[in-house]
Amino acid sequence: MTIQKAFGNSIQQLRKEKGLSQEKFALLIDMDRTYYASVESGKRNISLCNIQKIAKGLDVPISQLFENMEEEETDEFE
Amino acid sequence: MTIQKAFGNSIQQLRKEKGLSQEKFALLIDMDRTYYASVESGKRNISLCNIQKIAKGLDVPISQLFENMEEEETDEFE
Repeated sequence: MTIQKAFGNSIQQLRKEKGLSQEKFALLIDMDRTYYASVESGKRNISLCNIQKIAKGLDVPISQLFENMEEEETDEFE
Repeated sequence: MTIQKAFGNSIQQLRKEKGLSQEKFALLIDMDRTYYASVESGKRNISLCNIQKIAKGLDVPISQLFENMEEEETDEFE
């Protein structure tokens, strides 16, 4: 699994726990809805500022997005 | 403090703990040295793939880069 896909799964899970649709969540954090959807699908190499935006919207520290992700396997470089 | 600056401080601290120069570390993770230096200085909105590269080079989970960072204050959106 790529890092993008693992990150997308992590934020999707946390968003669903908050009971928000992709559309409502994207609106809440002032992010384009189709861009947000593509991040959840693991199609984007998202940047630090947007990672922070999502963490704030989910009301969790950024580290939690990645802790949540580390339970799943990601591809190794070597 | 911006998220970029806080992230830069965090990775700088972890790199120094490993006793590596910016140059050696950039070489180790196969990243352009001047690009890496600008990330440490908080000048780059670095992306997920490069964050992963740095975490692997530092031999820590990605979440640790951000835990380390959360001890410092970052700017709020609102």
